[in-house]
Amino acid sequence: MKILTTIDEIRKWVKEKRLQGKQIGFVPTMGYLHEGHLSLVEAAKQDNGAVVMSIFVNPLQFGPNEDFATYPRDMERDVGLAEKAGVDVIFAPEVSEMYPYYPQLTAVEVREITRGLCGASRPGHFTGVATVVAKLFNIVQPDTAYFGQKDYQQVQVIKRMTADLNMPVEIRTVPIKREKDGLAMSSRNTYLSEDERRQALCLSRALLLTRELFESGERNADKLNEAIKERISREPAASIDYIEICDADSLEPVAEIKGPAVVALAVKVGKTRLIDNLVLEG
Amino acid sequence: MKILTTIDEIRKWVKEKRLQGKQIGFVPTMGYLHEGHLSLVEAAKQDNGAVVMSIFVNPLQFGPNEDFATYPRDMERDVGLAEKAGVDVIFAPEVSEMYPYYPQLTAVEVREITRGLCGASRPGHFTGVATVVAKLFNIVQPDTAYFGQKDYQQVQVIKRMTADLNMPVEIRTVPIKREKDGLAMSSRNTYLSEDERRQALCLSRALLLTRELFESGERNADKLNEAIKERISREPAASIDYIEICDADSLEPVAEIKGPAVVALAVKVGKTRLIDNLVLEG
Repeated sequence: MKILTTIDEIRKWVKEKRLQGKQIGFVPTMGYLHEGHLSLVEAAKQDNGAVVMSIFVNPLQFGPNEDFATYPRDMERDVGLAEKAGVDVIFAPEVSEMYPYYPQLTAVEVREITRGLCGASRPGHFTGVATVVAKLFNIVQPDTAYFGQKDYQQVQVIKRMTADLNMPVEIRTVPIKREKDGLAMSSRNTYLSEDERRQALCLSRALLLTRELFESGERNADKLNEAIKERISREPAASIDYIEICDADSLEPVAEIKGPAVVALAVKVGKTRLIDNLVLEG
Repeated sequence: MKILTTIDEIRKWVKEKRLQGKQIGFVPTMGYLHEGHLSLVEAAKQDNGAVVMSIFVNPLQFGPNEDFATYPRDMERDVGLAEKAGVDVIFAPEVSEMYPYYPQLTAVEVREITRGLCGASRPGHFTGVATVVAKLFNIVQPDTAYFGQKDYQQVQVIKRMTADLNMPVEIRTVPIKREKDGLAMSSRNTYLSEDERRQALCLSRALLLTRELFESGERNADKLNEAIKERISREPAASIDYIEICDADSLEPVAEIKGPAVVALAVKVGKTRLIDNLVLEG
């Protein structure tokens, strides 16, 4: 497995693979890999002859009071995991390679679907995500790119951007990977103390409860919302950022579930903000 | 020469040419071709084995009180001129092909360099330009794209966008093409009455005067500005939108010309808004 750090190098690498007739699969990450990332690699390997993973903690998508500086990083461990998973090349640029001057003048903005959910609590976040993904797509020029469903709104933003800007990249979503007890895998789980880790289960448990209520016929968003709130408020370290039940495409809140919907949560457990979601085929 | 109207068709056409080992040159236009456009085709033919011209009047870059509906269109004439100039394929999509729903959610914004000049008089214009050019680049995937220097700020915006988003396209600027008497060629010149056409010469004449003053040593922007204003105000049908002397890259106004600068004008002659500019190697 190769590790490349410049745009010229990765372009040259991809070009060679393409000349060999290989499809290019791309897994963009911020590193500190867990099984969620590795499931993206697995999907990419099934579809493509060559798999590129980027590892880049993108400053543009962190707010001024967020955890850019402290976001967990461990390149050595990541390299081992990526190689074992069958990644062919890691693209791990410095910030100065991606943003020769920072912040750059050009931004990709996706409106409407970024208004609610994480977009409301993290202003500018999705513009940072869309912009860096546009850059990475233009650098790597993959056939297909793989994103985890845990970041549901992010996937919608990237699908929208790709369609709206006619980017020649297919977007595949891979289901949420969970720990044995149900906690959605996330690099930020490493922030949790042992006690917080136990309380953090309230997100997936609340979603499980939601699914049960839905399957027994409940379609009213307020009722489902109340049940989630009640479950989460049992944990003293947990404070709700948002609970939303939205149309699965437009991300507009719904009052009654009639079509495909997503139940999306953001909960702070101690100081750690965690997200999770559940798609209901209404 | 082929005329294609769907994204799938033009992608397929370009792919074939690429498999034949040809470099792709791209000339994006809004049609109603004049010699300015044809000089872009000429440059594209010199550098590339295949030349794509797009003809698309982009609604996204027109303000609500601007001339989208009345913008001159003449596809038959354009086809004849393009074919004669050696264009290999015209991509002429309908609005519904480019914007399946309008306005789309995703926009490409370039900040700072879009604040002044035409950006100030035409809010949203450059976001519309950057967005459609990003789309066209992703659709056509050219090696090199050609733009006329008459739209100086537009060229800067596109160069900035291309660099910031790491688009794999080279941008070439082609000098302003002028009528024999000096008027910068523009599709909008067709709006001018005979009398306005005569008065419209004040733009190029004022710039000629600026060059003379500059060459005789004048470096003070206010002084040059005054001379331009005086020249233009001689024409009763002419009203100044802006006269700016700016750094050639950042487009920030300068007080004294010390490095490369651009003198940029927008003047309404009757109801027709015309632009022109002059680059001074300070």
